[in-house]
Amino acid sequence: MAVNATYTVTGMTCEHCVASVTEELSELSGVTAVDVQLATGAVTVTSEHELSPDEVAKAVSEAGYQLAG
Amino acid sequence: MAVNATYTVTGMTCEHCVASVTEELSELSGVTAVDVQLATGAVTVTSEHELSPDEVAKAVSEAGYQLAG
Repeated sequence: MAVNATYTVTGMTCEHCVASVTEELSELSGVTAVDVQLATGAVTVTSEHELSPDEVAKAVSEAGYQLAG
Repeated sequence: MAVNATYTVTGMTCEHCVASVTEELSELSGVTAVDVQLATGAVTVTSEHELSPDEVAKAVSEAGYQLAG
């Protein structure tokens, strides 16, 4: 069953940033879709199983950005 | 003899943008160095001969940005 989780990522300023975050999150095991809204920073990740907050935070960080909160 | 010319590029918001502009300008014939200041949009191009304004504007446009003025 697909799991959707939405996060807020801060610091993205352009479509290059969106592409970087999308790429890093897409590489996580089980992820089937990533949707990023640049204007709000809302990032929705669809995955085959629940992801750990740590792995999501790490992927965002590897892209050069941070999870809010 | 090296020629330095400085332009102002609008719309760059992050280091990805800087990289895109640098890459496109670096590909122009005769260009030996490109320096981009993100905060101001100042782009200095060093080249072996004078560049035409049109080729510079086209390279910036191909990167997805515009020359000011």
